[in-house]
Amino acid sequence: MGSTEYKFEGWMGLSPESADGKMVWQEFQPKAWEETDVDIRITHSGICGSDLHTLRSGWGPTMYPCCVGHEIVGVAVRVGSQAEGNIKVGDIVGVGAQNDSCIGRKGDCEECASGLEQYCPNLMGGTYNSKHFNGDKSYGGYALYHRSPSHFVIKVPEGIPSALAAPMMCGGITTYSPLRHNGCGPGKKVGIIGVGGLGHFGIMFAKALGADKVVAISRKANKKDDALKLGADAYIATDEDAGWVKNNARSLDLIVSTVSSSKMPITDYISMLKPSGNFVQLGVPEDGALTIPAAALIMKRIKFGGSLIGSPSEIREMLELAASKGVKSWVEEIPMKDANKAILDMDAGKARFRYVLVNEQ
Amino acid sequence: MGSTEYKFEGWMGLSPESADGKMVWQEFQPKAWEETDVDIRITHSGICGSDLHTLRSGWGPTMYPCCVGHEIVGVAVRVGSQAEGNIKVGDIVGVGAQNDSCIGRKGDCEECASGLEQYCPNLMGGTYNSKHFNGDKSYGGYALYHRSPSHFVIKVPEGIPSALAAPMMCGGITTYSPLRHNGCGPGKKVGIIGVGGLGHFGIMFAKALGADKVVAISRKANKKDDALKLGADAYIATDEDAGWVKNNARSLDLIVSTVSSSKMPITDYISMLKPSGNFVQLGVPEDGALTIPAAALIMKRIKFGGSLIGSPSEIREMLELAASKGVKSWVEEIPMKDANKAILDMDAGKARFRYVLVNEQ
Repeated sequence: MGSTEYKFEGWMGLSPESADGKMVWQEFQPKAWEETDVDIRITHSGICGSDLHTLRSGWGPTMYPCCVGHEIVGVAVRVGSQAEGNIKVGDIVGVGAQNDSCIGRKGDCEECASGLEQYCPNLMGGTYNSKHFNGDKSYGGYALYHRSPSHFVIKVPEGIPSALAAPMMCGGITTYSPLRHNGCGPGKKVGIIGVGGLGHFGIMFAKALGADKVVAISRKANKKDDALKLGADAYIATDEDAGWVKNNARSLDLIVSTVSSSKMPITDYISMLKPSGNFVQLGVPEDGALTIPAAALIMKRIKFGGSLIGSPSEIREMLELAASKGVKSWVEEIPMKDANKAILDMDAGKARFRYVLVNEQ
Repeated sequence: MGSTEYKFEGWMGLSPESADGKMVWQEFQPKAWEETDVDIRITHSGICGSDLHTLRSGWGPTMYPCCVGHEIVGVAVRVGSQAEGNIKVGDIVGVGAQNDSCIGRKGDCEECASGLEQYCPNLMGGTYNSKHFNGDKSYGGYALYHRSPSHFVIKVPEGIPSALAAPMMCGGITTYSPLRHNGCGPGKKVGIIGVGGLGHFGIMFAKALGADKVVAISRKANKKDDALKLGADAYIATDEDAGWVKNNARSLDLIVSTVSSSKMPITDYISMLKPSGNFVQLGVPEDGALTIPAAALIMKRIKFGGSLIGSPSEIREMLELAASKGVKSWVEEIPMKDANKAILDMDAGKARFRYVLVNEQ
């Protein structure tokens, strides 16, 4: 139900040069409507680093034309008769970086059945630059409307403003999921490498989950004040604090790395972990594989792992925690019409810590 | 109590050439006696790959003279008045690759207190080529007698012949500990890479722990029959089975790698893991660090970890399991006098699967 008198229009990347602030506003054809879908009138759309990687084909050839954006919040304007999740027209809802998987439509799927849809072997359906289960192409949130399978549409709890909820849909959940999965909570000491879009969420969610101590780790000292305001208990500037490796040896249970470089000092980072500690890498470096000395893992039973966004059930859990603990994303709201300038500023590292594109009502 | 009318003599490496079958039989000075110590008349001493690495200074300069061997079983002949573990003169006991740690002697030690002495930050006291807490040098099991702090002396349960118990003290526990720590048991499918001294234990202990399926993985097909006899449910010869990567994708919960090469096809191995699977690397390659693409970890939430031997409490647990399930090491017994030939045969990969040096009674 709900109106269908709207067009799907948005900022489209037509080539790798689109990443240079050259997206073009034009109409696109959303996936064919199915009665399990929800149409969303987008009010807010966060800008994620992945958007830049994809616009410039940094992770491989992009399927142009491409409308990026996978931190979507808006109003449900059409809800299919077979939609999941008790969504009503008028509800404030969000969509993250994944909006399709097999959901058991190809037979039993252990991952979809167990609430880990992001690891579905049959379909990791990206919210943009991907294909839906029905074969149609997906288009993201730098747009007026978004059509998504309802399984991936999340109700935003009251108490979280839409502008703050939007960047949680990808940036937030990407840090929340590994913190939760790796036991972040009372009794644990946690390090967050990188104080940017992901890192600022990492600090806040580690605190919200009740970690005893949260240590923010960055190269320079210039983000220290912000990190402490976000809730970090300590700050390490690896380029400036002589002796940081020795002084912090065996001090952390868990490290979540939000930085992406094959050159990062992995052995030094691992030295900060206690025995049986976990290191979780979130970013995929464009510049090559990671080099890890086996002894650094063996001598302390360290696990070096990865983590990919989060599932709908994890997003719901994160939003409930954010609402109850008052976690507030640090965002700068920017009119949707200024998206081309915003992605340039984002690429230049100016965001403190997340830009959110806003459609005028 | 017990006799002290014995000399500490054994096969000593005097230089890296000792690894070429040039160990020399001579007396050595054991650590100064403390009332927390136990002296053991060695009956059996397994030959471990580490012995070769150490004799030839493969992992760094060795402190010559060096008596290697850290799979020791024998008879307690002297037990200090403050010894732990209710050990009596005449008991059959064993010592593995570690025979000292701080055990709380430098103040609180989380690792020693929690039964993870092998990760003690103050002292990982190797059974040979290392220093004891009191500063004295440690000497291993290619010898007539061994003196060890009692905390690291394990009673061998009845039902496990000494020759079979010896190689479990290092080779066995090195695979048992990560299998146990990573949830090997009913409902789990486990891969063991390498069918050698460690790998043969990996297969047997994975089965003894109740894994649903154990897959042995080696390069050639020539160890298939042995692997199946050891209890493996399936065998993959990666050099010979075309399509092994595709055919085994997402099939295993846990992989334990007993091979040591920086060139191993890590991405192919990881492809065999299900989402949230664990990969545990046991060997430290002499030829460099491991190269791991971040995406391989991130896209399935894989953890790539290491593991170092096992603690006294883990060794006790392993031996109880081995006794109750009838796990039998595959060993070839060799007179202690032939140790120089035995290490050459070991280095040439002839062991099926473990050599045990035996002192004539």
